[in-house]
Amino acid sequence: MNQFIQTDPWMLVEDRFDPARVKSSESLFALGNGVMGGRANFEERYSGDSLQGNYIGAIYYPDKTRVGWWKNGYPEYFAKVLNSAFWIGVDVAIDGEPLDLACVEVLAFRRELDMRRSVLTRRMTVRMRSGAEVEVEVVRFLSLERRELGVIRYAVRPLDRAAEITFSPYIDADVRNTDANYDEKFWEHVSTEGDAVQSRTKKSGFDVAWAQRVFLDGAEFRCETTTEQVRHTAAVRREAGEWATLYKYVGICSSLNHRPEELIAAARAVADDGADAMFGPLLREQEEAWAARWHSCDIEIDGDDAAQQGIRFCIFMLLQTYTGVDTRLNIGPKGFTGEKYGGVTYWDTEAYCLPFYMATAGREVARELLVYRYNQLDKAIENAAKLGFRDGAALYPMVTINGEECHNEWEITFEEIHRNGAIAYAIFNYIRYTGDEAYLAEGGAEVLLSIARFWAQRITWSEARKKYVMLGVTGPNEYENNVNNNWYTSYIACWSMRYAARAVKWVREHRPEAYADLCARRAFDEAAETAKWLEIDANMYLGEDRELGIFLQQDGYLDKEQVLVKDLDPAERPINQKWSWDRILRSCFIKQADVLQGLYLFRDEFDAATLRRNFDFYEARTVHESSLSPCVHAILAAGLGLMDKAYELYLRTARLDLDDYNREVEEGCHVTSMAGSWLAVVEGFGGMRVSDGLLTFEPHLPEAWRRLAFRIDYRGRVLSVEITRASVTIACEGAPVEVVLGGEKVLVEDTVERALK
Amino acid sequence: MNQFIQTDPWMLVEDRFDPARVKSSESLFALGNGVMGGRANFEERYSGDSLQGNYIGAIYYPDKTRVGWWKNGYPEYFAKVLNSAFWIGVDVAIDGEPLDLACVEVLAFRRELDMRRSVLTRRMTVRMRSGAEVEVEVVRFLSLERRELGVIRYAVRPLDRAAEITFSPYIDADVRNTDANYDEKFWEHVSTEGDAVQSRTKKSGFDVAWAQRVFLDGAEFRCETTTEQVRHTAAVRREAGEWATLYKYVGICSSLNHRPEELIAAARAVADDGADAMFGPLLREQEEAWAARWHSCDIEIDGDDAAQQGIRFCIFMLLQTYTGVDTRLNIGPKGFTGEKYGGVTYWDTEAYCLPFYMATAGREVARELLVYRYNQLDKAIENAAKLGFRDGAALYPMVTINGEECHNEWEITFEEIHRNGAIAYAIFNYIRYTGDEAYLAEGGAEVLLSIARFWAQRITWSEARKKYVMLGVTGPNEYENNVNNNWYTSYIACWSMRYAARAVKWVREHRPEAYADLCARRAFDEAAETAKWLEIDANMYLGEDRELGIFLQQDGYLDKEQVLVKDLDPAERPINQKWSWDRILRSCFIKQADVLQGLYLFRDEFDAATLRRNFDFYEARTVHESSLSPCVHAILAAGLGLMDKAYELYLRTARLDLDDYNREVEEGCHVTSMAGSWLAVVEGFGGMRVSDGLLTFEPHLPEAWRRLAFRIDYRGRVLSVEITRASVTIACEGAPVEVVLGGEKVLVEDTVERALK
Repeated sequence: MNQFIQTDPWMLVEDRFDPARVKSSESLFALGNGVMGGRANFEERYSGDSLQGNYIGAIYYPDKTRVGWWKNGYPEYFAKVLNSAFWIGVDVAIDGEPLDLACVEVLAFRRELDMRRSVLTRRMTVRMRSGAEVEVEVVRFLSLERRELGVIRYAVRPLDRAAEITFSPYIDADVRNTDANYDEKFWEHVSTEGDAVQSRTKKSGFDVAWAQRVFLDGAEFRCETTTEQVRHTAAVRREAGEWATLYKYVGICSSLNHRPEELIAAARAVADDGADAMFGPLLREQEEAWAARWHSCDIEIDGDDAAQQGIRFCIFMLLQTYTGVDTRLNIGPKGFTGEKYGGVTYWDTEAYCLPFYMATAGREVARELLVYRYNQLDKAIENAAKLGFRDGAALYPMVTINGEECHNEWEITFEEIHRNGAIAYAIFNYIRYTGDEAYLAEGGAEVLLSIARFWAQRITWSEARKKYVMLGVTGPNEYENNVNNNWYTSYIACWSMRYAARAVKWVREHRPEAYADLCARRAFDEAAETAKWLEIDANMYLGEDRELGIFLQQDGYLDKEQVLVKDLDPAERPINQKWSWDRILRSCFIKQADVLQGLYLFRDEFDAATLRRNFDFYEARTVHESSLSPCVHAILAAGLGLMDKAYELYLRTARLDLDDYNREVEEGCHVTSMAGSWLAVVEGFGGMRVSDGLLTFEPHLPEAWRRLAFRIDYRGRVLSVEITRASVTIACEGAPVEVVLGGEKVLVEDTVERALK
Repeated sequence: MNQFIQTDPWMLVEDRFDPARVKSSESLFALGNGVMGGRANFEERYSGDSLQGNYIGAIYYPDKTRVGWWKNGYPEYFAKVLNSAFWIGVDVAIDGEPLDLACVEVLAFRRELDMRRSVLTRRMTVRMRSGAEVEVEVVRFLSLERRELGVIRYAVRPLDRAAEITFSPYIDADVRNTDANYDEKFWEHVSTEGDAVQSRTKKSGFDVAWAQRVFLDGAEFRCETTTEQVRHTAAVRREAGEWATLYKYVGICSSLNHRPEELIAAARAVADDGADAMFGPLLREQEEAWAARWHSCDIEIDGDDAAQQGIRFCIFMLLQTYTGVDTRLNIGPKGFTGEKYGGVTYWDTEAYCLPFYMATAGREVARELLVYRYNQLDKAIENAAKLGFRDGAALYPMVTINGEECHNEWEITFEEIHRNGAIAYAIFNYIRYTGDEAYLAEGGAEVLLSIARFWAQRITWSEARKKYVMLGVTGPNEYENNVNNNWYTSYIACWSMRYAARAVKWVREHRPEAYADLCARRAFDEAAETAKWLEIDANMYLGEDRELGIFLQQDGYLDKEQVLVKDLDPAERPINQKWSWDRILRSCFIKQADVLQGLYLFRDEFDAATLRRNFDFYEARTVHESSLSPCVHAILAAGLGLMDKAYELYLRTARLDLDDYNREVEEGCHVTSMAGSWLAVVEGFGGMRVSDGLLTFEPHLPEAWRRLAFRIDYRGRVLSVEITRASVTIACEGAPVEVVLGGEKVLVEDTVERALK
């Protein structure tokens, strides 16, 4: 654990410069506006250790697969979101000496990321090698209103003498990915025109143009643009104490939204409009846009400042990463904070992120996430066909950016198929929360029936057991590979088939035209296919140990030596670093919630005693070496009233990156698992869920918290929920709504309060 | 199947030139003398498609591991036997025009590999672009007597006119491996001195020097040596019909056998001695050495010429690959015929090759193969320790050249641990055949107890079953990964522990000093450790289906959809090319003998009805997509009297490469599986085994064969076994020996004959 970042409810603050911390802080102080983002690299030259990163959502490169041993069915490439042009560049020199924090003496340094408005500020005082002392203040933001605009104000003043200050704002399009399988450069240069440069991704052929407009107190810039670098340089003289202030407006436009031949003009127009609007008004615009965003999703925690900052940071990062304006976008595991995991889409989106966006950004935004998968349905069918499945069965990829599978470990790519269940569940979860049943007719049922078809082929009949079985899978617990009858996967598969049958029935009954279209397009025979699904469901083998009263994670799980996590030598942890892979596989230790993931998703279907027995059994064996794990256990623990356990588990997620528990934040932040922290607070401690069609709250506050308040968007209204040790209060902005509070139905018109037992 | 190679009992012959066949023939016509070898590349320039390959046993390069996703425990490198200097080079020009079969008209072409003496001859007539017709005859061999000498006679005569013939014999040390993970060059240049060049392998630091002596009817050569290429050029004029004959003697010496600073002198001495001996006498020396080799191992098959040629080719390739003169050498899957599989050691050696060498080359040669593993015992213990095993437990690598693991697929590297059993079994098998029990005290018991220690830790107690289990293994059938209780692995593990207990007891009783030394060196507590081994053995779970009367390949095997190979659509085969990996894993199809491998090794322990039930069940599900599989099934089938089946299975191995069934012989020959063909003939059709300490024969001739005769070395004597449809005859050179013929003990003094029922 690392307490470098100061605790503050709305700010990330660091108040000293430590070269060893630069990469970590680049991740933590990253900016994003939902369509693009980047690491908190310094604008000026920095010759120390740094990881440059500027990313544009959905602009990817298909990096040729690298494997040790090829397996049939592996994809040809891994699509990676690219490190793109370094648009923030501002080289600075004082009397000709470059400003470079690795070379000068840093007398004072303070960096703040204001989460309320997504603005990054850096103030510092340095002593140059010449002896000159200089103060610097840099403000940077990516406009939330103007998705193609980046803004920088770079101010410098000499403190102890007059000095000539040279500014060289630039855009450098000659960039590479650190993570490149064959050390290739992914971009090729298209053209450069003085203030703008255009590049094209190799193979995938996306074009992007960057253009800058720069202003410096009326000084004249001379253009020093080279092939892949746009650069303007100007120098001004300042007396001691006098500021020289550079403004830089950068337009970043891609062929996702413009014709390639118009890109440079578009980027210039964005930069010009930004310059015309001017820095101050743009900053206010940014404040207002972010205030509106926070209005429906803030969480307040009284009595636990670290938790307060932690959860705000999670919400803030999620808001920076995805805003639901474009169905081609999704949520990469590291968001816009690093290259790792290629910026591509995992089942994290459906299992963890969707509930957050649903409850904070509203139906439209959440629906975009469903449409993303709907648009990729044909690719999912192709993907399944590559593996030998027929007749329109769909297997969604483990990792994707355009619908094609990218991952290449057979035990995951081909076997971690529960992701298909998460994608089906997301549709159910979305409709349950938003009430938007019509979505079934507008894509939902089509996805569901294609997934059900996959399960119906993937599940096979065991003549030996006289039951249906599912062989050769990897469950959410990736510390087991190629197992038979993983309970979670089998359960969600059966559930998917039942739900698909209900979904197509709903479409038939409510939207006959859509139904006819669906049957025709997908060659769907409802009677025959749903009968098969339900027959499989009725005869499916689901492992259970009656003596222990638990569901069996998979066949043979109880054959393992049953050692508990508490009895593991701490020197052996984390086992994923200390043990060989086979030893991990043979052990009973669980990487992340597996049976418990199922009990979490389907908790209305199990009684408390069952939940408790399974929780006690599996929590004792779970090492939580995935950032997606503790939140699920925390929610279940809170529901079971195991508050110490719940709080302990919650702490493992909420400040994971801020305190850099795993010593890896320099690679980027765990963005998707931040949604898990939100779930732990709202669903765990807030006890919120939708049950029997009603929004329900059963709050359980951790010992340390005096008050928890959160806001959610629920079917078009904003509900403010405030929980103290004594009571729960709900205020409603918008149409009255019936909720369940402490087991009792209540109509919330304005505000209701209920005492807590 | 491809009948390009002509059928001949002692020769490989091809009588036309087909550029598309060049690479395949380079593999088939390869030469070797047990310590080095190479593909049948042309001596003169060839600009067509070719795979250059010259290999020196045990000279390897540790090629940095390439993986998609790293797993803890993976090795840092894959040690590969290297493509080394192209020592056979002889460039030829006719009136200045280079001879290059890709550029001239080939009027006649005949290549012969004489397996009786390991001599490669090529005769051809070509029409140059100039119109000149030229005849060429090239003879090449690697001396079996002088292991560091290669000899070439290259004769050319103009046919239709006088011509100037230029010869440029050369050695080119600037060579690369085709199979290089990062496209690196593996050699660095050390020095060049006119007629000799010395190179060093990077990282592993082996030095090799090559020196040439060349003669051309007294012509003067001019030296044209460059940095990495030794070259001498001379031209002579010949009238039509007059031969110009070049002799080239090359010494190839490595730091395995010489001090690096003396290598060039050593290589020159070898070349000089060869030149002094002269071509004709060297050729006779080669004939005699090979005649001696064939004396104890030839097989004759009457009535089936293709089978005759096939089995001789198998024996010949095995003799070329390994001769047991050096414990640092072993048998790579492709021998000296290609780069694939890196020329390194697999369990093929113990399971397939050892019985061949034991029965054809005698005790000393076979023993070298055991000592190879004994010398690597400490590395095997380190290897196990890397995976978390303690107290001197040894896990031999899946793939190795120096005792360290090279392979990097977790399901194989970490889980295909039955190889440890094969290494234990080889000791048993060697002693059973040779009677050399003393080997137990001279390394055998030490290896055995270290392997038993591994099993005792790797096997764990299942509280649920109240039995010992072995979880997370891959059996010989690699179409299943990470399974529990693979019957074969569990069986051989238990057997290994029982045998280890007997072995240490033998050493204690017969060689007390060796025993004391063993206990001290390996911190061995016989009473405690063997008690544990036997306790595990007594309580081990071994899967069985009583209803079907079969042993269960692994837990859950009968849960699979039971489809038979005969019902597979031929268009879907081979499944390893047509199906995705997960589909293969989920299917019931078996790549290679697994339960049946165990029944083959331990067939004295099972009755015929059990063998038959298991054979019928598993053969019907085995696709034999490993070249090591059909031979085992063939032996069992012959033993069960299923002669059609046995013969069908045998045909799949014996001419696998000659007829290029799998269209991959251009990569090299399946050398280790050739030992399987020998096993199928001698153990299958010859019905030879050692049972109750006696050599036993129960012959079963295939329908097509009139007569099968084979010779074996049995405990220092040569036995000639001749089987006809009517009788079996055994002749003995050496001390009389008692054998079992048709169930009856017979003392063979000179010759005995028994009628067959």
